[in-house]
Amino acid sequence: MSYPEPLTRLVDQLKRLPGIGAKSAQRLAFHILRTPREDADRLIDAIREVKDRVTYCSVCSNTTDIDPCMYCRSDARNRNIICVVEEPQNVSVVDRTGGFRGRYHVLMGTISPLQGVGPDDLKIKGLLARIAGGGVEEVILATNPTVEGEATAIYLARLLKPLGLRVTRIATGIPVGSDLDYADDLSVGKAMDGRREI
Amino acid sequence: MSYPEPLTRLVDQLKRLPGIGAKSAQRLAFHILRTPREDADRLIDAIREVKDRVTYCSVCSNTTDIDPCMYCRSDARNRNIICVVEEPQNVSVVDRTGGFRGRYHVLMGTISPLQGVGPDDLKIKGLLARIAGGGVEEVILATNPTVEGEATAIYLARLLKPLGLRVTRIATGIPVGSDLDYADDLSVGKAMDGRREI
Repeated sequence: MSYPEPLTRLVDQLKRLPGIGAKSAQRLAFHILRTPREDADRLIDAIREVKDRVTYCSVCSNTTDIDPCMYCRSDARNRNIICVVEEPQNVSVVDRTGGFRGRYHVLMGTISPLQGVGPDDLKIKGLLARIAGGGVEEVILATNPTVEGEATAIYLARLLKPLGLRVTRIATGIPVGSDLDYADDLSVGKAMDGRREI
Repeated sequence: MSYPEPLTRLVDQLKRLPGIGAKSAQRLAFHILRTPREDADRLIDAIREVKDRVTYCSVCSNTTDIDPCMYCRSDARNRNIICVVEEPQNVSVVDRTGGFRGRYHVLMGTISPLQGVGPDDLKIKGLLARIAGGGVEEVILATNPTVEGEATAIYLARLLKPLGLRVTRIATGIPVGSDLDYADDLSVGKAMDGRREI
């Protein structure tokens, strides 16, 4: 490629972002070149603001600009139930359902021996400290229904049950609005196993 | 979504980029949040450098950090042949084939009545000025083989031929390495029309 050097460097930086290949990076770089100066400045400011102001909650590891985060600060949220998720972005996915009024705890990953991630690399100590603080009656394990998420849930269940808590796992099955014909065998199997009286 | 406000703003800014939807923007924003400070700074600097230092060549409208651009400056490039392309990024596509040693001219778009782009919105005046300057013997029209690119090529051919130049159009047909079975009818038709003695 024989682009001007700053353009080549921007393409290289954009290529490092997840899901951005060489072609996308090139298209984005040329878009940024064409875009009005103010738009580019707004993007720069937005990136800088995130790095300057957003951090992780010292209680639950959710992303926040004020520590502790809005969920940990709020008196309206039930302290007795903690929903455990893998990543900060999972918090808003659970919360926008509106059905859960407890608090959250973000593990910042899953147990994954292949990638060298063990229990000590996750925010499990913080979870135990919160439980030791008293008042927690139920822990909902909302890690993903993947091999790693499942293994992490089982590990946490074994760790937490002896503490006399109710430990629950979110249901797996076929998604609402889907067609049985197109569901994968594992999900159908899970849906059968998890059947309930109606 | 209940993200911290700077994170929401970054997601909004990223969503404005071409080809970046809500989910991708969210993934990118969380990646930028997690990434080391230096990496985010490198991205910021790369964006700023492009806006500060990259401009368009005053002769051919190619992107460049020095005006005129490397092609217009170079004595090694033939002044007699000008290859006309739609966008700055097309220049490097043609140039990396290595077969063309002439100069370029970027139109900065195509004639597109539906989008309100007429001939006067393109860098056609600059092309005429270069031709009026003398020495140009051939103009190669390398606009895309789309409806707009084709219409622009026809418009330019009609404009330039009376000036006594050789005006050529790049060949359309089936791409090298492809299979006739999978080629679209229009491309096969063009390939038949453009057949040559071997």
